[in-house]
Amino acid sequence: MGRVYNFSAGPAVLPEEVLKEAAEEMLDYKGTGMSVMEMSHRSKAFQEILDDAQADLRELLHIPDNYKVLFLQGGAHQQFAMIPMNLMKHKVADYIVTGQWAKRAYQEAQKYGKANKIASSEDKTFSYIPDCSDLPVSDDADYVYICENNTIYGTKFKTLPNTKGKLLVADVSSCFLSEPMDVSKYGVIYGGVQKNVGPAGMVITIIREDLITEDVLPGTPTMLTYKTHADAGSLYNTPNCYCIYMCGKVFKWLKKQGGLEAMKQYNEKKAKILYDFLDGSSLFRGTVVPEDRSLMNVPFVTGSDELDARFIKEAAAQGFVNLKGHRSVGGMRASIYNAMPIEGVEKLVEFMKKFEEENR
Amino acid sequence: MGRVYNFSAGPAVLPEEVLKEAAEEMLDYKGTGMSVMEMSHRSKAFQEILDDAQADLRELLHIPDNYKVLFLQGGAHQQFAMIPMNLMKHKVADYIVTGQWAKRAYQEAQKYGKANKIASSEDKTFSYIPDCSDLPVSDDADYVYICENNTIYGTKFKTLPNTKGKLLVADVSSCFLSEPMDVSKYGVIYGGVQKNVGPAGMVITIIREDLITEDVLPGTPTMLTYKTHADAGSLYNTPNCYCIYMCGKVFKWLKKQGGLEAMKQYNEKKAKILYDFLDGSSLFRGTVVPEDRSLMNVPFVTGSDELDARFIKEAAAQGFVNLKGHRSVGGMRASIYNAMPIEGVEKLVEFMKKFEEENR
Ligand SMILES: Cc1ncc(COP(=O)(O)O)c(C=O)c1O
Ligand SMILES: Cc1ncc(COP(=O)(O)O)c(C=O)c1O
Ligand SMILES: [Mg+2]
Ligand SMILES: [Mg+2]
Ligand SMILES: [Mg+2]
Ligand SMILES: [Mg+2]
Repeated sequence: MGRVYNFSAGPAVLPEEVLKEAAEEMLDYKGTGMSVMEMSHRSKAFQEILDDAQADLRELLHIPDNYKVLFLQGGAHQQFAMIPMNLMKHKVADYIVTGQWAKRAYQEAQKYGKANKIASSEDKTFSYIPDCSDLPVSDDADYVYICENNTIYGTKFKTLPNTKGKLLVADVSSCFLSEPMDVSKYGVIYGGVQKNVGPAGMVITIIREDLITEDVLPGTPTMLTYKTHADAGSLYNTPNCYCIYMCGKVFKWLKKQGGLEAMKQYNEKKAKILYDFLDGSSLFRGTVVPEDRSLMNVPFVTGSDELDARFIKEAAAQGFVNLKGHRSVGGMRASIYNAMPIEGVEKLVEFMKKFEEENR
Repeated sequence: MGRVYNFSAGPAVLPEEVLKEAAEEMLDYKGTGMSVMEMSHRSKAFQEILDDAQADLRELLHIPDNYKVLFLQGGAHQQFAMIPMNLMKHKVADYIVTGQWAKRAYQEAQKYGKANKIASSEDKTFSYIPDCSDLPVSDDADYVYICENNTIYGTKFKTLPNTKGKLLVADVSSCFLSEPMDVSKYGVIYGGVQKNVGPAGMVITIIREDLITEDVLPGTPTMLTYKTHADAGSLYNTPNCYCIYMCGKVFKWLKKQGGLEAMKQYNEKKAKILYDFLDGSSLFRGTVVPEDRSLMNVPFVTGSDELDARFIKEAAAQGFVNLKGHRSVGGMRASIYNAMPIEGVEKLVEFMKKFEEENR
């Protein structure tokens, strides 16, 4: 078949023109006579790829000068450990648990100190974001941790929690670069790139310079110390070079689309088409309270497991793939990241209408 | 220009037909309508890629059933920490230091217990492999560690050390799949793939099952525990999917070449051309004692920094690139991994002859 509409939650759809460029450059990157995959990470050509990627990311997010950008391996899960190992100076941290990934991070932190769950939405299958305006933030907390967009459950923090002066640390894996953000409000922002930015195998960590210290927990591996990578400009050891190259291409594509302000408008428009349909539909409904709905991940159900299964199957046959919801929510989930074109959402909704008519 | 002869020590040359296939499949992998980069790591299509890669690697190396194969992130450097964190049950390990990478591993291990340097070749810039037939292996050593092929210095263990019954752990990053090996002689074998196997961003660890335990050092991150990845078939979290796919293609390519027995013959033939020339040359000479010479990394010098620099520059202009030696050795280094065709070595030697004539 031709290209499908891929609603995968991650790894996920990438811009077609980026993939085309990568294919064209596969055997010879810009006259170097080699693939980027074959390039020494210490070469001039690769250093330019890395520098450009970093500069474009800084421009897109307006990253202040006192923040470092690190390209790291190990995925988001490795950050679940790196964050406490590097930041838990007083061995206390507060976690707001709004989904499975925040929960995993919270559990990992317990290895390293006192991790407090100061709020949770687990009572209602994480279908909302708790009120975080006046939480019992610990006096001696080294940071307050959130997962800003909850990939599985389709919720998003629309306002950041009141951390009462404590450092804010955020996992933005599934909303990274989907809209502008004020980096200065955070101590650490990190995202696995495999949802909205590039192929799997890398996480980008944006960290305020004063948090990069040698004063880490005893036994922290050199590779899990932020300072190691910050001091070496993400070249302490061989990074995921090809992923940096692909992310760099996506950054340039985002700039061409008009940057993150334009992406936000586009993503809002796309999400509205789907949410409006869900709200009007008598067969389908969204599972998240309207005020906390994610622009990126849209879970929905019919209420019948049998109908859900039939929908997923028939949709796939029409080229709308990876619509199965996470097992903890059931039903369907459409992830509509930056690279999902508006036509994909429009056509999905058309198909849903047809399915609804045929199954009322 | 067209494709160059790329003598980079890593990331390094890949088989051209593998790159061509990857380019062709970039927008649509086998009728899935998507790139492998866009594929959920939980999808059937990706699971097949992973299973195939593992099966082919097992076949190539004749890996016994009681060993697990893990596809991990973080590069070789992360193994420097994972090995002691997972294996140092008695907090004692013996290291044979034959180069910078073994030294780094030795230093990292010191964070976790008593790491003993039981042999070293640092006295002569690591230009040889010490006699390891009767070393003072510690009674309570949890393992003996070697770097089997020393990328920077161009030495290789031709016989494995006598570990006096202790577990052998080997970094094979720069000789991985260059020739057959008897996996059963090792407790753990690992290699960063970016030299002889695939693009950067992954390490393959082959580990005997009884060594995979929950009994790791306190504070070992979940992601740095072998058991985490072994239990989940390398899918505990999102792996470097595209790298697994590329390595899988290289494994198939190796099988087509006749497997590792055939590769060994081919690599010996290639290396002999270069070493024979170096031994006969009055201008160039290899820096390693003949009996410990690597088949993969061939360092050589003229004896004059000025001539070395001129050689590197003129070679690059003729399409022989990345011949500069590591700063700790100086001179030149030709890395002639599996994917370097014999023509590349023949033409390099022709060029060296010409250079010698012009500069006697
Ligand atoms: C928000 C979020 N955090 C963390 C993860 C885990 O990422 P990784 O697989 O890179 O460890 C995911 C998704 O898989 C996610 O959606
Ligand atoms: C033998 C050996 N071990 C370890 C390393 C370090 O690998 P990495 O950059 O993946 O950490 C290298 C090369 O860079 C190497 O050649
Ligand atoms: Mg979630
Ligand atoms: Mg409805
Ligand atoms: Mg070395
Ligand atoms: Mg000579």
